[in-house]
Amino acid sequence: MKPHVGFIGLGSMGEAMAANLLKAGYPLRVFNRTPEKAVQLVAAGAFQATQPADVAEPGGILISSLANDQAVEEAIGNDTKLLERLGKGGIHVSTSTIAPATARELAEGHGRHGVAYLACPVLGRPDAAAAAKLWLFLSGPPEAKERVQPLLQTLGQGVFDFGTDPESANVVKLACNFLIASLIEALGEAFALAEKNGIERTKVADVLGQTILASPAARNYSKQIAEKRYTPAMFKLPLGLKDIDLVLQTATASHVPMPLASLLHNRLLAELAKGHQDLDWTGLARGASEDAGLPT
Amino acid sequence: MKPHVGFIGLGSMGEAMAANLLKAGYPLRVFNRTPEKAVQLVAAGAFQATQPADVAEPGGILISSLANDQAVEEAIGNDTKLLERLGKGGIHVSTSTIAPATARELAEGHGRHGVAYLACPVLGRPDAAAAAKLWLFLSGPPEAKERVQPLLQTLGQGVFDFGTDPESANVVKLACNFLIASLIEALGEAFALAEKNGIERTKVADVLGQTILASPAARNYSKQIAEKRYTPAMFKLPLGLKDIDLVLQTATASHVPMPLASLLHNRLLAELAKGHQDLDWTGLARGASEDAGLPT
Amino acid sequence: MKPHVGFIGLGSMGEAMAANLLKAGYPLRVFNRTPEKAVQLVAAGAFQATQPADVAEPGGILISSLANDQAVEEAIGNDTKLLERLGKGGIHVSTSTIAPATARELAEGHGRHGVAYLACPVLGRPDAAAAAKLWLFLSGPPEAKERVQPLLQTLGQGVFDFGTDPESANVVKLACNFLIASLIEALGEAFALAEKNGIERTKVADVLGQTILASPAARNYSKQIAEKRYTPAMFKLPLGLKDIDLVLQTATASHVPMPLASLLHNRLLAELAKGHQDLDWTGLARGASEDAGLPT
Amino acid sequence: MKPHVGFIGLGSMGEAMAANLLKAGYPLRVFNRTPEKAVQLVAAGAFQATQPADVAEPGGILISSLANDQAVEEAIGNDTKLLERLGKGGIHVSTSTIAPATARELAEGHGRHGVAYLACPVLGRPDAAAAAKLWLFLSGPPEAKERVQPLLQTLGQGVFDFGTDPESANVVKLACNFLIASLIEALGEAFALAEKNGIERTKVADVLGQTILASPAARNYSKQIAEKRYTPAMFKLPLGLKDIDLVLQTATASHVPMPLASLLHNRLLAELAKGHQDLDWTGLARGASEDAGLPT
Repeated sequence: MKPHVGFIGLGSMGEAMAANLLKAGYPLRVFNRTPEKAVQLVAAGAFQATQPADVAEPGGILISSLANDQAVEEAIGNDTKLLERLGKGGIHVSTSTIAPATARELAEGHGRHGVAYLACPVLGRPDAAAAAKLWLFLSGPPEAKERVQPLLQTLGQGVFDFGTDPESANVVKLACNFLIASLIEALGEAFALAEKNGIERTKVADVLGQTILASPAARNYSKQIAEKRYTPAMFKLPLGLKDIDLVLQTATASHVPMPLASLLHNRLLAELAKGHQDLDWTGLARGASEDAGLPT
Repeated sequence: MKPHVGFIGLGSMGEAMAANLLKAGYPLRVFNRTPEKAVQLVAAGAFQATQPADVAEPGGILISSLANDQAVEEAIGNDTKLLERLGKGGIHVSTSTIAPATARELAEGHGRHGVAYLACPVLGRPDAAAAAKLWLFLSGPPEAKERVQPLLQTLGQGVFDFGTDPESANVVKLACNFLIASLIEALGEAFALAEKNGIERTKVADVLGQTILASPAARNYSKQIAEKRYTPAMFKLPLGLKDIDLVLQTATASHVPMPLASLLHNRLLAELAKGHQDLDWTGLARGASEDAGLPT
Repeated sequence: MKPHVGFIGLGSMGEAMAANLLKAGYPLRVFNRTPEKAVQLVAAGAFQATQPADVAEPGGILISSLANDQAVEEAIGNDTKLLERLGKGGIHVSTSTIAPATARELAEGHGRHGVAYLACPVLGRPDAAAAAKLWLFLSGPPEAKERVQPLLQTLGQGVFDFGTDPESANVVKLACNFLIASLIEALGEAFALAEKNGIERTKVADVLGQTILASPAARNYSKQIAEKRYTPAMFKLPLGLKDIDLVLQTATASHVPMPLASLLHNRLLAELAKGHQDLDWTGLARGASEDAGLPT
Repeated sequence: MKPHVGFIGLGSMGEAMAANLLKAGYPLRVFNRTPEKAVQLVAAGAFQATQPADVAEPGGILISSLANDQAVEEAIGNDTKLLERLGKGGIHVSTSTIAPATARELAEGHGRHGVAYLACPVLGRPDAAAAAKLWLFLSGPPEAKERVQPLLQTLGQGVFDFGTDPESANVVKLACNFLIASLIEALGEAFALAEKNGIERTKVADVLGQTILASPAARNYSKQIAEKRYTPAMFKLPLGLKDIDLVLQTATASHVPMPLASLLHNRLLAELAKGHQDLDWTGLARGASEDAGLPT
């Protein structure tokens, strides 16, 4: 029989992951600050808790999917009833993209309650989460990692193990998001160049998608930016800025100059300053079009 | 029976393409400024000319593979014996990566001799050329394009047609090289971040190669940069700078600000200033390591 | 008779300011975490306190000169015995360069004890402080500003008033330091260009100092960078990075993309990564020389 | 008695310089492609030539003030009737801001006619030219420099000698213009930061003008940018881009990475792409305001 699982945070990512767990037969207790988000999960069999602590089972497994460092600290933190109840033998699988430094602090604080903290940020957008095609980056205590393996298999297409260091998985996740944002910027500039020289953006995207960007993920980004299709947002611009700023913070703390990350920061910031907070983060490619005097 | 083909420029790209033409049964006349480069082709059946004009057959097909704009202008140009001899009905398939503006001038000049100029820059490094796995970007007069199709098929795995404009294929090629260089820079920064935070570069490359950079081309670049393997050079740094500077020239002429291209320009220039002209252009990733105080 | 003044923080800036206050006849109580720094001031008549609270006089004036936000929060903060003792009618003149957001928080916290918080960051290096040639940027409650005017006159050559907002003076100070760092970068690049083209750096500095950079401050920076004279440090590199990062934080919070500030951040960070933490912040100009393959 | 002087190029700079020569008693022959520009000078006593060659006097002095490299090459070049007529003992004082490489070629070509080429780019805008307050940067053959000294004194407030190398004076001039453009960018960002944080731009300009930017030139730029006053243009944006691109060309040729110059290039290019070719080059500061979502 499958173990009970507690789930906190039902945004577009969390809801999709929770649904897959239910489908795989895991009994689920869920909590979300805005309770309405749980309606479909409850219809599918989940129990809806009215406070975070109620999702936890002593010695059980808790999964969280939250927007940023602050949300994780507020909902779960290091000295909460939730952690107390989870207690010795408990495991917290933290799938949010947060600062490596925050992960380290959380791991230490969890330890005081006997709870194992597993950093498990995921790569993929809500559609990938729904299709159980996420990539999961994992780091933390070996026994805990082993215990959650079957569960993680139901969420994605692969788990990458980055050892025992709680922050390692987060560093790799940030590196991936930085790579994607770099790709968006590069595509934005390349398509602007093509467009201004009389070549259709989608024809260039087509070439790229068959050659150097022949991976499904990269091809999707390329197509979307070629079509200037920045809505509906799969991953909103402010979240993109949050991640790039986590990259820059981590880079500053470890003395790694990253001029391309700085460029991305300024592009994303300009989009916010101009009121585009509801665009997908591919919208950072707007900047290259706008600066070239092209339609955006 | 296959038509005679003239071939000018036997660098590592040209030699591999010429060898594939021979293998496919095309009678070949070759010319290279340094005649020693032709030894193997001659052994395989090519005729070695002692001056450019001697490779041409009236109304025939000429292919060139040269290092840069200046080399194309010197070897073929617009008012040479070679073009005169090629004459009406002749076709020049120009595979070098040159400025779109140069392509336009060449096309006009060729026209005065009745020669069709086909822009046909190729994507792929010498190993891809040898394996006939190049991607070819083609633009120019329709009849000429049709006539050379069978021949181009022997050189690569696909031909992309960008219409009749002589410079279009070059713009797309420049966009591709810009994308690759952007990827190199992004990888250089991402790996430096990982390395300084205690994570093995090759493990990050492994993740990228299975996820967002799952294309063979991108995966190769990623692996190479993770291993800091910048020799032997498949495509030398100064050629990389040449291409990025062609991107910037074309962007300036068409009023397209490209801050990422500027960043790449400065990285490549710094490598040259520090004496690394013999590295592969992936060596631009050295900069990110060096600036982070890491071993390069 | 002059009022008693408490002074906390005897770094090279603080000690020079305190000495000028003594010279002007203000009875002084001083505190510094490393007590040895107070020796000369005590010899000149200052009373040395063994804990921060002992420098305060109820309703009196306190001046602080500390390295960064954290140091101000630790030494003075918002809920300390020091503020309690200073109490109603007390004034804290905070001369450190700190984040505008920190200034706002301090002002609110101070208010709970009846203490007026005056933001008063100063422009000038230790030699200017010793010569009482500082420029002082002031913002905060009008009555408090009026009461400290005579005292501030003894410290510098001019006081600029930026209204009642506690953070305003800090924003202007950050803008000034950003301008200076921009100048350093511009000079570093300009001199590298000249040097590589066979022109003596000092001759260019001479021209600049008589034309566009004819102010004494700019001329000094120009001369120093032309001579590649980065020691002894008047203002150390890590402090420079701290200030530029405060600029970037403030800019991010208010949605102001600042690409030049990002460039400065990366230059300063590279210097730290390469072990140059003991250089003056003009040492950020090293980067331009090093990237050009020139002696640094 | 003063020697005859030929003058080619009556733009806003050239006309002002020519007028000062006339006022100082030099008999003047002028030529401009658009003859109407000469009306006032003719009224003041100048002789208007109908072709360039007619302004020259064998062994005499020729001054040119033209928009860019191409204009100098077309109007004067190396193998023209003008140079033939000027001939042995003749001197060409070239006040245009052109590429150092062009200056070297011109110097060589002039030499074949016995004409001494003096690089003499000038610092200052049309108002400074009119007030004879230019700064002149001079390099070339010593005897020629000596012969034109009295004449140059009437044009400006100072002459800086950079030796015999024909391109040196141009390198220094480019370095100065790069410094000014850097200042414009830095001010644009600093004022945007201030404005977004509720501080009046002109108050910050006032502080800067009394402290680090206390030179008249820097103070003027600061004031103008604070007031967002980009018209009427004293020095148009496209000319600014031309100069920054000459900086980048020279830097590329001599292997000097200049990331700040690249930033300026992209800012200026964006202004052109957006249709602001009639603004003063201080208009590059618009970019920082626009990216911050501020009124421009």
